[in-house]
Amino acid sequence: MNEHPITYQPIGFIETPFNNLHDMPIQPCGASHVKGKLIVKPEFVAGLMDLDGFSHIYVIYHFHHARDYDLLLTPFMDSNPHGVFATRAPKRPNPIGISILRLLSIDENILLLENVDMLNGTPILDIKPYIPAFDHYEVNREGWLTGRDDDIKTMRSDERFV
Amino acid sequence: MNEHPITYQPIGFIETPFNNLHDMPIQPCGASHVKGKLIVKPEFVAGLMDLDGFSHIYVIYHFHHARDYDLLLTPFMDSNPHGVFATRAPKRPNPIGISILRLLSIDENILLLENVDMLNGTPILDIKPYIPAFDHYEVNREGWLTGRDDDIKTMRSDERFV
Repeated sequence: MNEHPITYQPIGFIETPFNNLHDMPIQPCGASHVKGKLIVKPEFVAGLMDLDGFSHIYVIYHFHHARDYDLLLTPFMDSNPHGVFATRAPKRPNPIGISILRLLSIDENILLLENVDMLNGTPILDIKPYIPAFDHYEVNREGWLTGRDDDIKTMRSDERFV
Repeated sequence: MNEHPITYQPIGFIETPFNNLHDMPIQPCGASHVKGKLIVKPEFVAGLMDLDGFSHIYVIYHFHHARDYDLLLTPFMDSNPHGVFATRAPKRPNPIGISILRLLSIDENILLLENVDMLNGTPILDIKPYIPAFDHYEVNREGWLTGRDDDIKTMRSDERFV
Protein backbone atom coordinates (compact mmCIF):
# COMPACT_ATOMS: atom_id res chain seq x y z
CA MET A 1 0.00 0.00 0.00
CA ASN A 2 1.25 3.42 -0.92
CA GLU A 3 1.89 5.34 2.29
CA HIS A 4 3.88 8.14 0.73
CA PRO A 5 2.33 11.58 0.76
CA ILE A 6 0.68 12.56 -2.50
CA THR A 7 1.89 15.86 -3.90
CA TYR A 8 0.11 18.03 -6.44
CA GLN A 9 0.90 21.34 -8.12
CA PRO A 10 -1.89 23.78 -8.97
CA ILE A 11 -2.70 23.88 -12.69
CA GLY A 12 -3.97 27.42 -12.18
CA PHE A 13 -5.98 29.75 -9.98
CA ILE A 14 -9.45 31.22 -9.96
CA GLU A 15 -10.38 34.88 -9.66
CA THR A 16 -13.72 35.39 -7.92
CA PRO A 17 -15.57 38.29 -6.22
CA PHE A 18 -15.11 36.63 -2.80
CA ASN A 19 -12.10 37.86 -0.88
CA ASN A 20 -13.28 36.50 2.43
CA LEU A 21 -15.64 33.82 3.63
CA HIS A 22 -18.22 36.20 4.97
CA ASP A 23 -21.32 36.08 2.78
CA MET A 24 -19.92 33.70 0.19
CA PRO A 25 -22.38 31.18 -1.31
CA ILE A 26 -21.75 27.68 0.03
CA GLN A 27 -22.50 25.78 -3.18
CA PRO A 28 -22.54 26.64 -6.91
CA CYS A 29 -26.35 26.34 -6.99
CA GLY A 30 -26.46 29.29 -4.59
CA ALA A 31 -24.14 31.33 -6.79
CA SER A 32 -26.09 31.54 -10.02
CA HIS A 33 -24.70 34.31 -12.20
CA VAL A 34 -21.62 34.82 -10.04
CA LYS A 35 -18.81 34.93 -12.55
CA GLY A 36 -15.17 33.98 -12.12
CA LYS A 37 -12.09 33.55 -14.27
CA LEU A 38 -10.06 30.40 -14.05
CA ILE A 39 -6.54 31.17 -15.22
CA VAL A 40 -4.69 28.06 -16.37
CA LYS A 41 -0.91 28.11 -16.26
CA PRO A 42 0.49 28.49 -19.79
CA GLU A 43 2.24 25.11 -19.69
CA PHE A 44 -1.14 23.32 -19.41
CA VAL A 45 -3.08 25.21 -22.09
CA ALA A 46 -2.89 22.38 -24.63
CA GLY A 47 -4.89 20.27 -22.18
CA LEU A 48 -7.92 22.54 -22.70
CA MET A 49 -8.48 21.44 -26.31
CA ASP A 50 -12.19 20.66 -26.93
CA LEU A 51 -13.20 21.54 -23.37
CA ASP A 52 -15.23 24.41 -24.84
CA GLY A 53 -17.68 21.84 -26.19
CA PHE A 54 -19.01 21.24 -22.67
CA SER A 55 -21.49 23.56 -20.95
CA HIS A 56 -20.57 22.41 -17.43
CA ILE A 57 -17.31 21.29 -15.86
CA TYR A 58 -16.07 19.87 -12.60
CA VAL A 59 -13.50 22.13 -11.02
CA ILE A 60 -11.41 20.40 -8.34
CA TYR A 61 -9.53 22.67 -6.00
CA HIS A 62 -7.66 23.08 -2.75
CA PHE A 63 -9.43 24.87 0.12
CA HIS A 64 -6.39 27.03 0.71
CA HIS A 65 -7.85 28.87 3.70
CA ALA A 66 -8.71 25.72 5.64
CA ARG A 67 -6.26 25.25 8.50
CA ASP A 68 -6.28 21.86 10.17
CA TYR A 69 -9.47 19.78 10.17
CA ASP A 70 -12.28 18.57 12.39
CA LEU A 71 -13.67 15.04 12.18
CA LEU A 72 -16.96 16.22 13.68
CA LEU A 73 -18.40 19.55 12.69
CA THR A 74 -21.63 21.48 12.46
CA PRO A 75 -22.17 22.44 8.81
CA PHE A 76 -23.78 25.65 7.58
CA MET A 77 -27.05 23.89 6.88
CA ASP A 78 -27.64 22.25 10.26
CA SER A 79 -27.35 22.83 13.97
CA ASN A 80 -26.17 19.31 14.77
CA PRO A 81 -22.67 17.91 14.35
CA HIS A 82 -21.93 15.35 11.65
CA GLY A 83 -18.85 13.48 10.54
CA VAL A 84 -16.80 15.60 8.15
CA PHE A 85 -17.18 13.00 5.37
CA ALA A 86 -20.98 13.37 5.61
CA THR A 87 -20.60 17.10 4.82
CA ARG A 88 -19.08 19.35 2.17
CA ALA A 89 -17.32 21.55 4.74
CA PRO A 90 -13.80 22.76 3.85
CA LYS A 91 -11.94 21.68 7.01
CA ARG A 92 -11.30 18.12 5.83
CA PRO A 93 -8.29 15.82 6.34
CA ASN A 94 -7.47 16.50 2.67
CA PRO A 95 -9.11 19.88 1.95
CA ILE A 96 -10.27 19.14 -1.60
CA GLY A 97 -13.28 20.98 -3.02
CA ILE A 98 -15.44 20.08 -6.00
CA SER A 99 -17.71 22.55 -7.78
CA ILE A 100 -19.77 22.00 -10.90
CA LEU A 101 -19.54 25.26 -12.82
CA ARG A 102 -21.03 26.58 -16.01
CA LEU A 103 -18.40 27.16 -18.67
CA LEU A 104 -19.24 30.33 -20.63
CA SER A 105 -16.15 30.63 -22.80
CA ILE A 106 -12.45 29.92 -23.11
CA ASP A 107 -9.99 32.53 -24.36
CA GLU A 108 -6.48 31.08 -24.57
CA ASN A 109 -5.73 30.10 -20.96
CA ILE A 110 -8.69 31.88 -19.35
CA LEU A 111 -11.98 30.11 -18.62
CA LEU A 112 -14.96 32.35 -17.93
CA LEU A 113 -17.19 30.52 -15.46
CA GLU A 114 -20.55 30.99 -13.80
CA ASN A 115 -21.97 29.72 -10.46
CA VAL A 116 -18.64 30.36 -8.75
CA ASP A 117 -18.66 29.62 -5.00
CA MET A 118 -14.93 29.79 -4.27
CA LEU A 119 -12.60 32.25 -2.62
CA ASN A 120 -10.55 34.54 -4.83
CA GLY A 121 -7.13 33.00 -5.48
CA THR A 122 -8.19 29.39 -4.87
CA PRO A 123 -5.60 27.00 -6.37
CA ILE A 124 -7.08 24.68 -9.00
CA LEU A 125 -6.00 21.03 -9.12
CA ASP A 126 -8.01 19.61 -12.00
CA ILE A 127 -10.78 20.20 -14.53
CA LYS A 128 -13.04 17.48 -15.94
CA PRO A 129 -16.09 17.59 -18.23
CA TYR A 130 -19.43 17.20 -16.44
CA ILE A 131 -21.45 14.52 -18.24
CA PRO A 132 -24.99 13.64 -17.13
CA ALA A 133 -24.66 10.03 -18.32
CA PHE A 134 -21.78 9.63 -15.87
CA ASP A 135 -22.82 12.01 -13.14
CA HIS A 136 -26.58 11.82 -12.64
CA TYR A 137 -27.66 9.21 -10.11
CA GLU A 138 -31.05 8.81 -8.54
CA VAL A 139 -30.61 8.60 -4.81
CA ASN A 140 -32.96 7.05 -2.30
CA ARG A 141 -31.40 8.49 0.86
CA GLU A 142 -29.84 11.87 1.55
CA GLY A 143 -29.33 11.64 5.29
CA TRP A 144 -29.32 14.80 7.38
CA LEU A 145 -29.92 16.90 4.25
CA THR A 146 -33.33 15.35 3.58
CA GLY A 147 -35.86 18.08 2.84
CA ARG A 148 -33.34 20.92 2.95
CA ASP A 149 -32.76 21.22 -0.77
CA ASP A 150 -34.06 24.75 -0.88
CA ASP A 151 -31.95 26.12 1.97
CA ILE A 152 -28.79 25.63 -0.01
CA LYS A 153 -29.57 28.39 -2.48
CA THR A 154 -29.84 31.14 0.11
CA MET A 155 -27.31 29.92 2.67
CA ARG A 156 -24.10 31.93 2.99
CA SER A 157 -20.86 31.00 4.65
CA ASP A 158 -19.24 32.51 7.70
CA GLU A 159 -15.82 32.23 9.30
CA ARG A 160 -16.35 28.96 11.11
CA PHE A 161 -14.20 26.90 8.80
CA VAL A 162 -11.10 29.09 8.67
CA MET B 1 -0.58 33.23 -5.03
CA ASN B 2 0.27 29.94 -3.37
CA GLU B 3 2.95 28.23 -5.43
CA HIS B 4 3.89 25.62 -2.86
CA PRO B 5 3.13 22.03 -3.69
CA ILE B 6 -0.04 20.71 -2.08
CA THR B 7 0.46 17.53 -0.10
CA TYR B 8 -2.23 15.04 0.91
CA GLN B 9 -2.21 11.78 2.85
CA PRO B 10 -4.61 8.98 1.93
CA ILE B 11 -7.50 8.61 4.36
CA GLY B 12 -7.74 4.95 3.33
CA PHE B 13 -7.67 2.49 0.46
CA ILE B 14 -10.20 0.61 -1.62
CA GLU B 15 -10.28 -3.11 -2.28
CA THR B 16 -11.75 -3.96 -5.68
CA PRO B 17 -11.80 -6.97 -8.02
CA PHE B 18 -9.56 -5.13 -10.50
CA ASN B 19 -5.87 -5.90 -10.12
CA ASN B 20 -4.94 -4.56 -13.50
CA LEU B 21 -6.39 -2.14 -16.01
CA HIS B 22 -7.29 -4.76 -18.56
CA ASP B 23 -11.06 -5.11 -18.77
CA MET B 24 -11.85 -2.69 -15.92
CA PRO B 25 -15.00 -0.57 -16.36
CA ILE B 26 -14.13 3.03 -17.19
CA GLN B 27 -16.92 4.69 -15.18
CA PRO B 28 -19.11 3.68 -12.22
CA CYS B 29 -22.17 3.51 -14.49
CA GLY B 30 -20.41 0.68 -16.35
CA ALA B 31 -19.71 -1.16 -13.10
CA SER B 32 -23.17 -1.74 -11.74
CA HIS B 33 -23.09 -4.45 -9.05
CA VAL B 34 -19.29 -4.46 -8.85
CA LYS B 35 -18.62 -4.32 -5.14
CA GLY B 36 -15.63 -2.91 -3.30
CA LYS B 37 -14.59 -2.21 0.27
CA LEU B 38 -13.26 1.19 1.21
CA ILE B 39 -11.13 0.80 4.32
CA VAL B 40 -10.78 4.06 6.21
CA LYS B 41 -7.75 4.49 8.46
CA PRO B 42 -8.78 4.14 12.12
CA GLU B 43 -7.78 7.71 12.96
CA PHE B 44 -10.46 9.07 10.57
CA VAL B 45 -13.38 6.84 11.57
CA ALA B 46 -15.13 9.57 13.60
CA GLY B 47 -15.47 11.51 10.34
CA LEU B 48 -17.86 8.86 9.00
CA MET B 49 -20.64 9.72 11.47
CA ASP B 50 -24.01 10.01 9.65
CA LEU B 51 -22.52 9.15 6.26
CA ASP B 52 -24.64 5.99 6.30
CA GLY B 53 -27.70 8.20 5.75
CA PHE B 54 -26.67 8.76 2.13
CA SER B 55 -27.26 6.23 -0.64
CA HIS B 56 -24.52 7.63 -2.90
CA ILE B 57 -21.16 9.23 -2.21
CA TYR B 58 -18.37 10.93 -4.08
CA VAL B 59 -15.11 9.08 -3.65
CA ILE B 60 -12.07 11.17 -4.55
CA TYR B 61 -8.87 9.25 -5.16
CA HIS B 62 -5.38 9.21 -6.54
CA PHE B 63 -4.78 7.35 -9.82
CA HIS B 64 -1.78 5.61 -8.33
CA HIS B 65 -0.86 3.73 -11.51
CA ALA B 66 -0.74 6.83 -13.68
CA ARG B 67 2.86 7.73 -14.47
CA ASP B 68 3.45 11.16 -15.95
CA TYR B 69 0.70 12.81 -17.99
CA ASP B 70 -0.28 13.75 -21.52
CA LEU B 71 -1.92 17.07 -22.37
CA LEU B 72 -3.44 15.56 -25.51
CA LEU B 73 -4.75 12.03 -25.48
CA THR B 74 -7.18 9.71 -27.18
CA PRO B 75 -9.70 8.54 -24.59
CA PHE B 76 -11.32 5.10 -24.47
CA MET B 77 -14.53 6.42 -25.99
CA ASP B 78 -13.14 8.12 -29.07
CA SER B 79 -10.57 7.73 -31.81
CA ASN B 80 -9.58 11.40 -31.88
CA PRO B 81 -7.27 13.20 -29.46
CA HIS B 82 -8.66 15.73 -27.00
CA GLY B 83 -7.17 17.91 -24.31
CA VAL B 84 -6.77 15.96 -21.08
CA PHE B 85 -9.10 18.37 -19.23
CA ALA B 86 -11.86 17.54 -21.73
CA THR B 87 -11.59 13.87 -20.72
CA ARG B 88 -11.75 11.70 -17.60
CA ALA B 89 -8.53 9.85 -18.45
CA PRO B 90 -6.18 9.06 -15.54
CA LYS B 91 -2.93 10.49 -16.95
CA ARG B 92 -3.59 14.05 -15.75
CA PRO B 93 -1.20 16.72 -14.42
CA ASN B 94 -2.73 15.99 -10.99
CA PRO B 95 -4.03 12.41 -11.29
CA ILE B 96 -7.21 12.85 -9.24
CA GLY B 97 -10.20 10.60 -9.89
CA ILE B 98 -13.82 11.09 -8.88
CA SER B 99 -16.38 8.28 -8.77
CA ILE B 100 -19.97 8.43 -7.59
CA LEU B 101 -20.54 5.15 -5.80
CA ARG B 102 -23.50 3.52 -4.13
CA LEU B 103 -23.00 3.15 -0.39
CA LEU B 104 -24.46 -0.17 0.76
CA SER B 105 -23.35 -0.19 4.39
CA ILE B 106 -20.74 0.97 6.88
CA ASP B 107 -19.27 -1.36 9.47
CA GLU B 108 -16.83 0.49 11.73
CA ASN B 109 -14.16 1.71 9.29
CA ILE B 110 -15.27 -0.34 6.29
CA LEU B 111 -17.60 1.03 3.62
CA LEU B 112 -19.23 -1.53 1.36
CA LEU B 113 -19.68 0.12 -2.05
CA GLU B 114 -21.22 -0.70 -5.41
CA ASN B 115 -20.46 0.52 -8.96
CA VAL B 116 -16.74 0.38 -8.23
CA ASP B 117 -14.54 1.27 -11.22
CA MET B 118 -11.17 1.61 -9.52
CA LEU B 119 -8.03 -0.48 -9.29
CA ASN B 120 -7.49 -2.59 -6.20
CA GLY B 121 -5.42 -0.66 -3.66
CA THR B 122 -6.31 2.81 -4.94
CA PRO B 123 -5.50 5.44 -2.27
CA ILE B 124 -8.56 7.43 -1.20
CA LEU B 125 -8.25 11.18 -0.60
CA ASP B 126 -11.76 12.22 0.38
CA ILE B 127 -15.39 11.17 0.70
CA LYS B 128 -18.36 13.53 0.32
CA PRO B 129 -22.11 12.95 0.27
CA TYR B 130 -23.68 13.00 -3.22
CA ILE B 131 -26.69 15.31 -3.15
CA PRO B 132 -28.88 15.80 -6.24
CA ALA B 133 -29.81 19.37 -5.23
CA PHE B 134 -26.10 20.24 -5.42
CA ASP B 135 -24.95 17.86 -8.13
CA HIS B 136 -27.60 17.62 -10.84
CA TYR B 137 -27.23 20.17 -13.60
CA GLU B 138 -28.96 20.22 -16.93
CA VAL B 139 -26.35 20.62 -19.62
CA ASN B 140 -26.84 21.98 -23.10
CA ARG B 141 -23.51 20.90 -24.57
CA GLU B 142 -21.45 17.78 -24.01
CA GLY B 143 -18.81 18.20 -26.67
CA TRP B 144 -17.13 15.16 -28.18
CA LEU B 145 -19.26 12.88 -25.98
CA THR B 146 -22.52 13.95 -27.62
CA GLY B 147 -24.59 10.89 -28.48
CA ARG B 148 -22.22 8.41 -26.87
CA ASP B 149 -24.00 8.04 -23.57
CA ASP B 150 -24.67 4.38 -24.13
CA ASP B 151 -21.11 3.40 -25.04
CA ILE B 152 -19.91 4.18 -21.55
CA LYS B 153 -21.67 1.25 -19.97
CA THR B 154 -19.98 -1.40 -22.06
CA MET B 155 -16.59 0.25 -22.59
CA ARG B 156 -13.64 -1.34 -20.78
CA SER B 157 -10.21 0.08 -20.14
CA ASP B 158 -6.87 -1.11 -21.48
CA GLU B 159 -3.26 -0.35 -20.66
CA ARG B 160 -2.97 2.91 -22.56
CA PHE B 161 -2.96 5.13 -19.50
CA VAL B 162 -0.36 3.35 -17.41
